[in-house]
Amino acid sequence: MKVKVGINGYGTIGKRVATAVNQQDDMEIVGITKTRPTYEAKDAVKKGYPVYVPKESLEAFEAAGVPVAGTVEDMIEAADIIVDCTPGKLAEEYKAKYAAAGKKAIWQGGEDHGLTGISFNATANYKESWGAQFSRVVSCNTTGLLRTLYKIDENFKIKNAFVTLIRRSADPNDSKNGPINAIEPVVKLPTHHGPDVQSIMPWLNISTMAVKVPTTLMHVHTIVVELEKEATTEEIKEVIRNCPRVMMVKNKDGVKSTAQIMDLARELGRSRGDMFEIVVWEEGIKVVGNTLYFYQAVNQESDVIPENIDCIRSMCKLEADPAKSMEKTDRSMGL
Amino acid sequence: MKVKVGINGYGTIGKRVATAVNQQDDMEIVGITKTRPTYEAKDAVKKGYPVYVPKESLEAFEAAGVPVAGTVEDMIEAADIIVDCTPGKLAEEYKAKYAAAGKKAIWQGGEDHGLTGISFNATANYKESWGAQFSRVVSCNTTGLLRTLYKIDENFKIKNAFVTLIRRSADPNDSKNGPINAIEPVVKLPTHHGPDVQSIMPWLNISTMAVKVPTTLMHVHTIVVELEKEATTEEIKEVIRNCPRVMMVKNKDGVKSTAQIMDLARELGRSRGDMFEIVVWEEGIKVVGNTLYFYQAVNQESDVIPENIDCIRSMCKLEADPAKSMEKTDRSMGL
Repeated sequence: MKVKVGINGYGTIGKRVATAVNQQDDMEIVGITKTRPTYEAKDAVKKGYPVYVPKESLEAFEAAGVPVAGTVEDMIEAADIIVDCTPGKLAEEYKAKYAAAGKKAIWQGGEDHGLTGISFNATANYKESWGAQFSRVVSCNTTGLLRTLYKIDENFKIKNAFVTLIRRSADPNDSKNGPINAIEPVVKLPTHHGPDVQSIMPWLNISTMAVKVPTTLMHVHTIVVELEKEATTEEIKEVIRNCPRVMMVKNKDGVKSTAQIMDLARELGRSRGDMFEIVVWEEGIKVVGNTLYFYQAVNQESDVIPENIDCIRSMCKLEADPAKSMEKTDRSMGL
Repeated sequence: MKVKVGINGYGTIGKRVATAVNQQDDMEIVGITKTRPTYEAKDAVKKGYPVYVPKESLEAFEAAGVPVAGTVEDMIEAADIIVDCTPGKLAEEYKAKYAAAGKKAIWQGGEDHGLTGISFNATANYKESWGAQFSRVVSCNTTGLLRTLYKIDENFKIKNAFVTLIRRSADPNDSKNGPINAIEPVVKLPTHHGPDVQSIMPWLNISTMAVKVPTTLMHVHTIVVELEKEATTEEIKEVIRNCPRVMMVKNKDGVKSTAQIMDLARELGRSRGDMFEIVVWEEGIKVVGNTLYFYQAVNQESDVIPENIDCIRSMCKLEADPAKSMEKTDRSMGL
C-alpha cells in the first residue's frame, strides 16, 4: 500500500515535491491543486496528475480547456497526507480542513513553527515528526544552516554562530520582484533565520543578518562559528564532507560562483537542473584559533524537496531509521 | 601659494580627486595624465585641465585632436604632489620617478601598505602622514570600516569584529565585468580587507569574508562587533551618528537599499551624484548583550575622495588640526 500524497499548491515547491514523490516506491501522487489554469496547471495534466481546483476556479479551468478531477476538498478526501505548498495566510484555514478530514499535513518554511509545534530537518530531527499529524519543513536557508551546523555542533560544539545570508532577490521564473541593481539589507534584527534554526536546535547560539541581492540562482551564506573544542581546518573539512546532502566543490575546478554550481546541477541530469545539496567551497573553509569561517550556497527552489519526502516517511511511519529514509530518497532522486 | 597637485591617472578615482582639489582654496590642479584619448580625456580638456600623456601616446592624442600639455614627466616636474590613481603594477616604477624628481605622492588602496609604509584615513590617523613624502589612502571598503569602527573602538573597545563585505561587481561605467546573475565568494580567507584595516588600526581583531554580487552602485557591509564595554543600542547610535563622514538613514523614510541612497546623493546635488559618506541604516543597528550588529553601505567610487584631500593637507603641512582639515574639505565638497 503506497501512501497517498496530495499536493496543495503546485508552484515552485509543490511541483518539485510532486516529481520527488513520483520517484518513490512507497508513496504516490493522488492529485495536485491549482487556482488558475496557468502553464504549470497544463503541464501537471500532461504529467498525468489529477488536478483539483477551488470551486470558484472551476469555470476558468473549463474555459481554458484544462480538465479538472474535482475540488480541493475532494483531493483532501482522497489523500492520506497533504503537502501544503500554498502561499501565506491560508495555513490556519487549511489546517482546520485537514483536521476535520482527519488527514496529516506538512507545511513549508514560510509558515511559523507555532502552526504545527514541530519542525522538520532530516539530519537534525527526523524522529520528532514520527507519526505526527502535522509538521513543517523549515525554509531553504534554515535547511542549509541545519545541514552543516548540526554536524559541526555534534563534533565540536558551537559556542556562537554569526551568519550573513546573501539572498537571491527572485526565483528564475519571477519577473516581478527586485532589486535589479541594488543591495537591500533586512534591517529588522535578528532576521527570522536564526530563530528558525532554533526551532530545531534550541540550544544553538546563532545570530543572522541578511541582504537581498540581484540574482535568481541561489542564496549564499557567510558563516563564522566560534567553537568550544579546538579543531583544525582539515578536521572541519572532513566533517562537512560527510554531512548528508552537502556537496563540497573546489574553486580551482572552476566552480567560482553560484552560476557554475547551477550549471553543474544541469550536467548531473537533475530534474529541472536542481541542486538539492547544500554546496560548500572547500578552499573557503578556514579555522583560525577556535573560529571557523566558511561559505555555503543554497538552491532556494530545491534543497527542501528531499526533506519533504523524508518528512512524509517519518509522519506516516514508513521508515524508522533516518539514515535509511534519506538514503532511499537520495538514491531515487539522483543525489 | 596654493599646493600644486598633479593627478596621474584620470579614471574613476582620479577624475573625482581632480574635482575635489578644484573645490579647495589651498590647492590647485596643475594637470592630469591619460594614456588614451577617451571621452574622459576629452572631458578633462573641456574642464580646463592640462592633459599630460606618455610619450608613446602623443601620436594618438594628436590624431584624435585632443590637445596635450606635455609628457607625464613634465607634469611630475610641474607638481608639488602627485595623486597617483594609475592602475596596478606601475606603482614601483612611478615611485622611483617621483623620488628622483623630489616630489610627494599619494597612492590609492589598490597598492600595498608596504609601498609607502604609511596608510591614511582622516578619522583614524591624519597626523601619521604629516610632512611625509609618500602615503597611501586605503581602499573604499577599508575607509568605510575605519570611519565607523575607529569611533566604536574608541568609545567601547572592540574585542572582535566579524565583517562580511557584499561587494558590487563592477562600477557603473564598466560593461566588461561580471557576474551578472550569480554570487561569487572570495574563498581565500581572510580577505585582504581585515589586514588593510590593521595597517591603520594594528591593535584591532578583525576578520573579513567577501562575496561579489551583480550590482554596480555600492558595497554593503554586515558587521558583528563583540565589545569589551557594555553598550546600549541608543549609545551606539549616538556614536555612529557623530562619526565624521558617516550618514545615518532610515529604512522607514524609504531608504531601503543602495538604490535609494544613490538617488538621495543625486538629490543632494553632489558632483557626479556621489555619496562621499558611509551610510548606516538606523533601524539596522542592534546590540544584544555585548554584541553589536549593523549594516553600512560604501559608494566605491567616491568615499575616498575627501580622504585624498585631507591626505594632501597633512603631507603638505597645510593644516595641523585633523578636524579643521576635514571640516574645510567637507564644506567645500558639499558634504
